[in-house]
Amino acid sequence: MPQTIKKYQKKAQYSYALGAFVTFELLKNRAEDAEAVYLHSAIDSPDLAAEIRALCAEQNVHCAVNDRLVEKLREKENCYVVGVFRKFETELAPNAPHVVLVSPSVMGNIGTIMRTCIGFGIKDLAIIQPAADVFHPKTVRASMGALFAMRFHYFSNFEDYAELYGKHAMYPFLLHGKHILQSLPHREGLFSLIFGNEATGLPDSFASVGESVTIRHSQAIDSLNLSMAVGIALYEFTK
Amino acid sequence: MPQTIKKYQKKAQYSYALGAFVTFELLKNRAEDAEAVYLHSAIDSPDLAAEIRALCAEQNVHCAVNDRLVEKLREKENCYVVGVFRKFETELAPNAPHVVLVSPSVMGNIGTIMRTCIGFGIKDLAIIQPAADVFHPKTVRASMGALFAMRFHYFSNFEDYAELYGKHAMYPFLLHGKHILQSLPHREGLFSLIFGNEATGLPDSFASVGESVTIRHSQAIDSLNLSMAVGIALYEFTK
Repeated sequence: MPQTIKKYQKKAQYSYALGAFVTFELLKNRAEDAEAVYLHSAIDSPDLAAEIRALCAEQNVHCAVNDRLVEKLREKENCYVVGVFRKFETELAPNAPHVVLVSPSVMGNIGTIMRTCIGFGIKDLAIIQPAADVFHPKTVRASMGALFAMRFHYFSNFEDYAELYGKHAMYPFLLHGKHILQSLPHREGLFSLIFGNEATGLPDSFASVGESVTIRHSQAIDSLNLSMAVGIALYEFTK
Repeated sequence: MPQTIKKYQKKAQYSYALGAFVTFELLKNRAEDAEAVYLHSAIDSPDLAAEIRALCAEQNVHCAVNDRLVEKLREKENCYVVGVFRKFETELAPNAPHVVLVSPSVMGNIGTIMRTCIGFGIKDLAIIQPAADVFHPKTVRASMGALFAMRFHYFSNFEDYAELYGKHAMYPFLLHGKHILQSLPHREGLFSLIFGNEATGLPDSFASVGESVTIRHSQAIDSLNLSMAVGIALYEFTK
């Protein structure tokens, strides 16, 4: 298998968890999709190496030292562990709250949003295409492995999503929404929090979807950044 | 002056606003510290170039085309405008709320936090050293120019800050604070929201400073990321 491993490509069936922390999350949460773990001989902690080996053995995942491969795949000098995993996609839970990202374009944002979702107990993420690559090692690293604890699904348009999850109360976040976040009537049950692209926000058509919401901010900035808006919304909706 | 301009250095008296957007913010908010603006001849919008020239003329800031210099200073190919500015430090307003960052180490975080502060109407930022460089072009760009709309000041330790601003109600954010953010008793008047380093958080000694606060999150993550925590706190404190 090492012979066939190439630098990450969007079309490839495999991606990489770079670093020990993210690889641990892969092995803990998604071992069934872990194909192999490679260590670099310069790894500075023998304890860490032993722990990874033990976890791989327990999960029946191939583990080997392969300096050349780690050097080829890593993006930073101080990365000594690489987990190879099969890309996966899962159905969203129909009876859980969702976050819906419409055409997010920055990989780091998607990763940060995943981590924040998990932080607020939200495990379901819908992504409406076109969108940045959820499986790119940069996204995976920005998520600090939260990717492996989530259910997420790509949709080619919002209508496809809405048709499947029509029971959810829909809250599109717009610059000029009907409600101010902190004044929203008490919400219970299922909800979908919907956010647009970093640069353009949601199309105007979302004003007629469910109950649109605005996070009030000063005129001195154009908008909050996307992951910040999602984090604040999640805080308010789950508190 | 162009002959003496070097790639950014922490010790230097000058730093750079990279890109048109950030340079506009410099010229609008801090023209007195703008030394010069350089344009690249490949700038794709004549209107943009004209607008920058006009703003420079109005503010009496030297403006010239200098491809070599722009190419030396920019970090991305598609950056055609560079503003050169003198580093500045200002006193904090004694009668305004503050954000206090204790030893932040990631420049992107400081920039994002500045932008978010401005978004929630907070203009005063204290930074306790050691800390990442507020003036690095990366920080400035991450702030999207919010740096130029802020007052901020470095302190060599928290005690120096607390001595000057003892009238502020102090709220250190800790993983195990006395209060849960959403259950904090109603706060009025002056406050200081205090946050620790990205990796280590605030030292335990802060548990005895003012009223410590926790943003509740699931056990599945170690902590929220720093800029997210600041954003959520600002949202709750200013809503």
